[in-house]
Amino acid sequence: MVEHLPLAPVIILNAPQMAENIGAVARVMANFGLSELRLVSPRDGWPQERAWPLAAGAEGLLNAARVIGSVSEAIADLQLVFATTARPRELQLPILTPRAGAAELNEASRRGERIGLLFGGERAGLETTDIALCQAVVTIPIDPAFKSLNLAQAVAINAYEWRTTLDNTAPAIFREHSPTADGAAMLGLFEHLERELDGAGFFHPPDKRPSMVLNLRSALGKGRLSEQEVRTLRGVVTALSRGRGRVLAKLAKQRAERVED
Amino acid sequence: MVEHLPLAPVIILNAPQMAENIGAVARVMANFGLSELRLVSPRDGWPQERAWPLAAGAEGLLNAARVIGSVSEAIADLQLVFATTARPRELQLPILTPRAGAAELNEASRRGERIGLLFGGERAGLETTDIALCQAVVTIPIDPAFKSLNLAQAVAINAYEWRTTLDNTAPAIFREHSPTADGAAMLGLFEHLERELDGAGFFHPPDKRPSMVLNLRSALGKGRLSEQEVRTLRGVVTALSRGRGRVLAKLAKQRAERVED
Repeated sequence: MVEHLPLAPVIILNAPQMAENIGAVARVMANFGLSELRLVSPRDGWPQERAWPLAAGAEGLLNAARVIGSVSEAIADLQLVFATTARPRELQLPILTPRAGAAELNEASRRGERIGLLFGGERAGLETTDIALCQAVVTIPIDPAFKSLNLAQAVAINAYEWRTTLDNTAPAIFREHSPTADGAAMLGLFEHLERELDGAGFFHPPDKRPSMVLNLRSALGKGRLSEQEVRTLRGVVTALSRGRGRVLAKLAKQRAERVED
Repeated sequence: MVEHLPLAPVIILNAPQMAENIGAVARVMANFGLSELRLVSPRDGWPQERAWPLAAGAEGLLNAARVIGSVSEAIADLQLVFATTARPRELQLPILTPRAGAAELNEASRRGERIGLLFGGERAGLETTDIALCQAVVTIPIDPAFKSLNLAQAVAINAYEWRTTLDNTAPAIFREHSPTADGAAMLGLFEHLERELDGAGFFHPPDKRPSMVLNLRSALGKGRLSEQEVRTLRGVVTALSRGRGRVLAKLAKQRAERVED
């Protein structure tokens, strides 16, 4: 397998509120050698000139920041994304320390995968639906008595841990042999499956659909499927549901013939 | 030797300039369980009300901060103090990473020693005469191309490393939500799926069935599914194929009715 020079994680801020924090994030990213920043629906729009003084010279990084409309679009080209959140969630995703998370990201990057870290906004944090698009959760070990961690500090801890992995050989938990599916491919699989399950009346009662969808997505997503595996599973979904379509067509045809009889 | 509960390091800010940074330092100290802050000759005097909003609730810590006239007085009651600085100095002191520094501090604290970390002001950093009062230098591994690290971020990295020394017994992946499915449950899922796929004509050509089965099993198995997730996926398989079964039954019934016609 080809060994790649590790490419630093993309930092994705979902619904950030304070432009000053975005500037501070850019500064600390530059401190630790990270360079790509994506902003999902920043509250006050973008650009905001209040961000630039806080970047303290990391202006190229701020100037190049991309604004994107949704988390799923923001991670569409990434193959391994961890959600950074302090809150326990109902999702059955692995929970990693920043150190273990950085080691996993480093290894994935050496395999040539595109990696990212997703952070929530200052107040709301991350929605479960966004976390479900990630392959694991990174939780910073903060004091339960004082959990209010500044956004730029959360990025700092993870960026620092990333930087320290460059001097170490990372351990392996995830091993891959073929290219890992990116976020867009996973979303395609999820939506295909959910469409067919809607047709099959799987989501019952209907008000449980959202949580059932989350559970399915995290169950299928945490295994870090390859592109080939995603294609195979889409074939599985098609095969299992196609039979139904074919039989329905046959039934319709027979009915038509009966009418003609 | 008596083993003490480790007492967190005292944070000493030498000649800090911006009150906002002092507030942000207090906040991140509280995040990681540190509680004692000492200010050596803050530029604008003390207290400064601009600090309090940035502390985001860590007000007790700010209220208790002591103002001291010199570094030597500020460290007078401490037995092990490290100077945090990014700059190479002529002093022949050990240079430690934040991780190694935190480990040393933890060990000293368990021996009952009083420990501290010394930080310089935003512009000037630390004077050699002040560093010389410390027992080692802690250097944060920042990108040589962008060395301007915010004071509160520097405290954050070291406070975080201190905090992780308290958690050393915790494994990297420290939480799983529900019992992981055992081999029998996984095999049940695999065989259920493969049975339905046989019925749907998925395995084509037939001599490729064994390798297709292996690929499917590894794709689904590597995510370490929980028992609950296995049940959910079996429900998915049933739902997708049930429609087909129902229609087949209906078709058979219609055929029977046609014969009776």
